[in-house]
Amino acid sequence: MKVQILGSGITRFGELWDRSLLSLAQEAGEEALEDAELSSADIDLVLVANMLSSRVASQGHLGAAVAARLGIDSPAVHVESACASGGVAVRMGSTAIAAGEAERVLVVGVEKMTDLSTPEVVSALMEAGDEEKEARVGATFSSLYAMMARAYMAEFGASQEDLAWVAVKNHGHASLNPLAQYPFSVTLEQVLESPVIAEPLKLLDCSPITDGAAAVVLGRAENGKRKTEDRRKVFIAGSGQGQDTLALQDRKDLTALKATVEAAKKAYSMAGIKPSDVRVAEVHDCFSIAEVLALEDLGFCQKGEGFSLVGKEDVRLGGRCPINTSGGLKACGHPVGATGVKQIAEVYRQLKGTAGERQVEKAKVGLAHNVGGSGATVVVHILRSL
Amino acid sequence: MKVQILGSGITRFGELWDRSLLSLAQEAGEEALEDAELSSADIDLVLVANMLSSRVASQGHLGAAVAARLGIDSPAVHVESACASGGVAVRMGSTAIAAGEAERVLVVGVEKMTDLSTPEVVSALMEAGDEEKEARVGATFSSLYAMMARAYMAEFGASQEDLAWVAVKNHGHASLNPLAQYPFSVTLEQVLESPVIAEPLKLLDCSPITDGAAAVVLGRAENGKRKTEDRRKVFIAGSGQGQDTLALQDRKDLTALKATVEAAKKAYSMAGIKPSDVRVAEVHDCFSIAEVLALEDLGFCQKGEGFSLVGKEDVRLGGRCPINTSGGLKACGHPVGATGVKQIAEVYRQLKGTAGERQVEKAKVGLAHNVGGSGATVVVHILRSL
Repeated sequence: MKVQILGSGITRFGELWDRSLLSLAQEAGEEALEDAELSSADIDLVLVANMLSSRVASQGHLGAAVAARLGIDSPAVHVESACASGGVAVRMGSTAIAAGEAERVLVVGVEKMTDLSTPEVVSALMEAGDEEKEARVGATFSSLYAMMARAYMAEFGASQEDLAWVAVKNHGHASLNPLAQYPFSVTLEQVLESPVIAEPLKLLDCSPITDGAAAVVLGRAENGKRKTEDRRKVFIAGSGQGQDTLALQDRKDLTALKATVEAAKKAYSMAGIKPSDVRVAEVHDCFSIAEVLALEDLGFCQKGEGFSLVGKEDVRLGGRCPINTSGGLKACGHPVGATGVKQIAEVYRQLKGTAGERQVEKAKVGLAHNVGGSGATVVVHILRSL
Repeated sequence: MKVQILGSGITRFGELWDRSLLSLAQEAGEEALEDAELSSADIDLVLVANMLSSRVASQGHLGAAVAARLGIDSPAVHVESACASGGVAVRMGSTAIAAGEAERVLVVGVEKMTDLSTPEVVSALMEAGDEEKEARVGATFSSLYAMMARAYMAEFGASQEDLAWVAVKNHGHASLNPLAQYPFSVTLEQVLESPVIAEPLKLLDCSPITDGAAAVVLGRAENGKRKTEDRRKVFIAGSGQGQDTLALQDRKDLTALKATVEAAKKAYSMAGIKPSDVRVAEVHDCFSIAEVLALEDLGFCQKGEGFSLVGKEDVRLGGRCPINTSGGLKACGHPVGATGVKQIAEVYRQLKGTAGERQVEKAKVGLAHNVGGSGATVVVHILRSL
């Protein structure tokens, strides 16, 4: 175990009209440094995860921009893998530590989405797909995931009601998360009666457009001595990245994400654990069908069983392995560049025992699952507390 | 010496109206793989350097997009640090190899700029600067570098004629480079008579808007056994990244790039060499003043002597340490995401002895210097052949 998580920061997620991209990044970064009891001078690499700042804020060179705002003088880089940018950035931070290139790395994920109109955001998000094969012919991410949902429902006999349980569960969790964009519960009826976005997906099957930022500080495990020793230490025990075709049409199977299966296999193997050892997880529920597929692809259940698992107590707070305690992308919100970092920050807080009202008892192994596009890039992290 | 350069690819640079972003990336990637005598299955990490594809090609998720085009199934990530994206990507590739995360890394830098109008490109490039402090008040990169030129000329008594020698030298080199955007010589008079862009910088003091791609394959040195053993081996002997404020107005000194000084110090120290050991170099001449500053900040001459060095034989082909044998950003062209990778590919070819008509004799140590924005991010690499 070479890499320890030393601190985390998460801003409020939502429609933050009065906040700029950089002020959100700064807030999350400063909170993570404070949580780690470190100052900006202690950081020797800054990695910034973001997808849309070029289009939304006319600001590129975001590594340098965020480092400058935080008063950090060390090398800084912007990394982008669409909605998996956050997970990828944390992986690259761990790599830099493993290579001896850095001792302490600040990873900041940030996205400001509400400065564009909704049609503009939907169009910008399609940059995560294949421009030539998908965007140019009018596909949106709702329609791509709707095709996956249709294929899954046809293959395994799942219903819209089965998918709707994802939203019911995740909104229930978000009602306990003061940072969530939608901190309230919804009923199965409300999900089923919400407007159709892309048949069979309804409004409440879809994650929203969100502003927000999240940050973590990574450090070499042996340098992880803390002033406050009463808090549990949390390590990155495993990590894997999987890759698939950019365009959905080039895949053999629409009812699984090959990249999730690959990333999970690497992460479990590196951590030396099996899926049933995981006691809390954040999975990439950009649409309800995505969480169903994730539960299967991550090995939490057999193929074709995910749609019945999402409605069970097992995956709710209080159950054996609660999924998306933050509220997930669905109800906590989905500021794309921030999401992967927020997932890791949430699991970190669960393992550290600082998750407040939504604390999972005695969780020592947690997982974070971050998807880019319709599954071209997937990152899985396994965290463990000692 | 842990990292070896196993192969390189460079497309033609220019206004390539009939080529797409992805076709350029593919061509450079395939050429580098062929040069390295490797196939796509041998690559276990793809890093893609690019700044503007979101705005120009509506394609994000560029790691996955380029990997898919090349038929590479391994993890892929897009990294961006404005015009220093290429140098940063090569650094991250070396880091992944040093960490044992990858054995062979393909780094592709690519930019397609001519699909936007010139005013749109100038505006898009300002994303490399500070949106709030610079772009919003109307600054362009020509005007920012013009301020640096003014400050330098006032401090050291340099003239427009002194700066013009950069263009004369680099166009002379480009006339020997069949891939260059402007493969022809210019006279001092032509530079001085060219239209003013931002006083004191004239048209021929400025690098152009360019389409193009470049790629290198990096590998662990011990895996560097080649079928063709008659070619020299080239290693990354040193590498450093320096950082500065994003906005020019926040700096104490406009007549030097602090980030270049820092990056060079780290790279020289890691390689165990001094500036006078370097026998060929590609430096970031986005504007003529930038090459003058680079020669000083890299230690090739004393402070205030750069403007007289650029006109001397020493830095021309045939001289002691030729600078920008490719023609530099000025005359070879400046496809921003590709530039940093092309610089390293050019130095690699010089050290390997395959630089054709512009071959520097007996060069065993070379340097590549890549700047992002007005100097917020700088990467220096030192290459050595055995």
